[in-house]
Amino acid sequence: MSRLVMKFGGTSVADLDKIANAAGKVAQEVANGHEVVVIVSAMSGKTNEMVGWVKDTKQDYDRAEYDAVVSAGENITSGLMALRLQQMGIPARSWQGWQVPVQTTGHHESARIDAIPSENLDASFASGHKVAVVAGFQGVMADGRIATLGRGGSDTTAVAFAAAMNAERCDIYTDVDGIYTTDPRIVAGARKLNKISYEEMLELASLGAKVLQTRSVELARSYKVPLRVLSSFEEDISENVGTMVCQEKDIMENIKAVKGVAYSRDEAKLTLVSVADRPGVAAAIFGPLADAGVNVDMIVQNISEEGHTDMTFSCPVDHVLRAEKALKTALDADLISYKELIADTEVAKISIVGNGMRSNAGVASKMFKVLADEGVNIRVITTSEIKVSVLVDRKYMELAVRALHDAYELETA
Amino acid sequence: MSRLVMKFGGTSVADLDKIANAAGKVAQEVANGHEVVVIVSAMSGKTNEMVGWVKDTKQDYDRAEYDAVVSAGENITSGLMALRLQQMGIPARSWQGWQVPVQTTGHHESARIDAIPSENLDASFASGHKVAVVAGFQGVMADGRIATLGRGGSDTTAVAFAAAMNAERCDIYTDVDGIYTTDPRIVAGARKLNKISYEEMLELASLGAKVLQTRSVELARSYKVPLRVLSSFEEDISENVGTMVCQEKDIMENIKAVKGVAYSRDEAKLTLVSVADRPGVAAAIFGPLADAGVNVDMIVQNISEEGHTDMTFSCPVDHVLRAEKALKTALDADLISYKELIADTEVAKISIVGNGMRSNAGVASKMFKVLADEGVNIRVITTSEIKVSVLVDRKYMELAVRALHDAYELETA
Repeated sequence: MSRLVMKFGGTSVADLDKIANAAGKVAQEVANGHEVVVIVSAMSGKTNEMVGWVKDTKQDYDRAEYDAVVSAGENITSGLMALRLQQMGIPARSWQGWQVPVQTTGHHESARIDAIPSENLDASFASGHKVAVVAGFQGVMADGRIATLGRGGSDTTAVAFAAAMNAERCDIYTDVDGIYTTDPRIVAGARKLNKISYEEMLELASLGAKVLQTRSVELARSYKVPLRVLSSFEEDISENVGTMVCQEKDIMENIKAVKGVAYSRDEAKLTLVSVADRPGVAAAIFGPLADAGVNVDMIVQNISEEGHTDMTFSCPVDHVLRAEKALKTALDADLISYKELIADTEVAKISIVGNGMRSNAGVASKMFKVLADEGVNIRVITTSEIKVSVLVDRKYMELAVRALHDAYELETA
Repeated sequence: MSRLVMKFGGTSVADLDKIANAAGKVAQEVANGHEVVVIVSAMSGKTNEMVGWVKDTKQDYDRAEYDAVVSAGENITSGLMALRLQQMGIPARSWQGWQVPVQTTGHHESARIDAIPSENLDASFASGHKVAVVAGFQGVMADGRIATLGRGGSDTTAVAFAAAMNAERCDIYTDVDGIYTTDPRIVAGARKLNKISYEEMLELASLGAKVLQTRSVELARSYKVPLRVLSSFEEDISENVGTMVCQEKDIMENIKAVKGVAYSRDEAKLTLVSVADRPGVAAAIFGPLADAGVNVDMIVQNISEEGHTDMTFSCPVDHVLRAEKALKTALDADLISYKELIADTEVAKISIVGNGMRSNAGVASKMFKVLADEGVNIRVITTSEIKVSVLVDRKYMELAVRALHDAYELETA
């Protein structure tokens, strides 16, 4: 019998009515002849409530205890979902992470899934259960303590189960109906994509299209798990709805060089002026920044004068203070040298993403021309194989996104 | 090192402040040189909330799923309590039922503790932990599914741990400061008892002094675990506060024949008039009542006429309708025969309890005389070795309790 994984996030199981709605979709897939593994998150708000309790109890909390507390949310939902399915006449039971078991390694609160032996769930299906409702976002360490995968880990759980249980597809139900060419709040003509490659999705996800967790897409790519994003709140769940995230070779329509335009609003640009240009200087700068918890994104190094260079990087606006402090400390300790530190906290990042760029010259230069025509000054440029990102003044962000969406004709398929 | 079990009920861990307060008491006992096993309930209200979700999802719910959902409450509290203790500098960790493991048998939602292997907790103490915070009210079945012991099962968990871990005492922290000679809301002069025997406590508990769960007292008696009831909300937790529940031989002060006066307000008396008096008739009557879920308490059989008898029993007022229905069904099916069924829903039960009755003639007759002097008519009498119970008209209940408390001089030690 074919197997399917269906994952419902917090807003899709926010209350008993929403759980019933999600159970209805599971029932449809059972009626379609599937054995289903359902992965559930905590009812929305519950995890935050528990995290609040933990932090109010001990600020530098024991992460094993954090996991023991916070995992309760998914356990509750999995039991309620199993009950709801039973109420609909469908043989179902709940599974907590340690019961499967979902074996994890690494650190508490950010554990990684090591293995999911399929024996227990296989036996459950063989005994007549049609649905296994698994508490997402959690597993068990080798020492028998509960571990969580970090916020958003339910997506990763879902993909890992799809791989372990040989599911034909992993459906991620969420509060949007798919992946769009850009943010519809900025561009009215933003279009839902039917298919997108893992690589494109990874670039879009890490750039702020917060529909799928990056780790889950990486895992899906590794195990070639077809991943579908679709809405919990629409009737139709047949195969042609939502957006399918899959291998590049499975995308027939892949004509366009650019698939989407992503943005990240609250970025800052920091420039270290006249840094001594010697081996190891990049490590000396970015080591202390990493230690201080600064999420450095783009890095650009420009030649300035003989033996010196300007080093520019971007980070979230609210990391600027700690970046400045870490660099000042390194300067005072003579670990690095620079003449000046210039921070520009009024920039935004805009990226164009598409597998087609690989074989399509001129995509980047078109981007620069479009922005120049609109009078938008480009502060920093970085490129990857399937992505071009620029920093621009924040006030031009919406304008730039719209212009690029138009220029690459993303409104039409 | 000596070990202690400390149990905190829902009102004692109702919020983060109360958890901190309870942790303070644990810290005191650690400072006194004990290794401590702490048993915690869910934060008050949480269990009811989850039970509501379960019942709203499926009325005739799968009890295994009920257990999977409802056990989350204690898991949350145990993690938070461990964190709070760590915050106070005390090495502590949480334990969920399956991690210990607390091995259970029987039915979900009303499981019994089968065994508590001490190896894991022993190893934890040996490794330097001073406190094991255990989620009460739960365990794990042989098939690896979570089981709960039924409401109030946290007391039972505590006593079972005290027996398994060779604790020198099991302290039950609650919202009252001990066991009283009677309800202080009815008799202003009710006196707190320093000590009470297991047997007396059992009779008082089952009669409505709802401080300790009956099963926990039975278990404590079997394993001779000294059990102390004391308040979570008073400073002093030294050995002379609260009420100690212990073996009769350890009670020096056991001079009085009567130790306390208990009552149960909402009782009903049902009489089957002129039942055929043949072997098996009692089974024919009380079998259907048990099947219908009627909690039959007192049973009295009177001779009425040749070959016939009157059968009287008591049950909670809100069980009367289903009792009448079950008896009518049995009558219609010719399983039993009776002329009339008389229900009196306006009675209350009053009991006097005391080990001293065994060796003290005249205790019961004194009770009847006291009630007669007050003009209180006795409807039904039953006796056990250490208890005499009567049904009286409900309107006389408070009067009767006060008169008996006076007559047996319970106000003074």
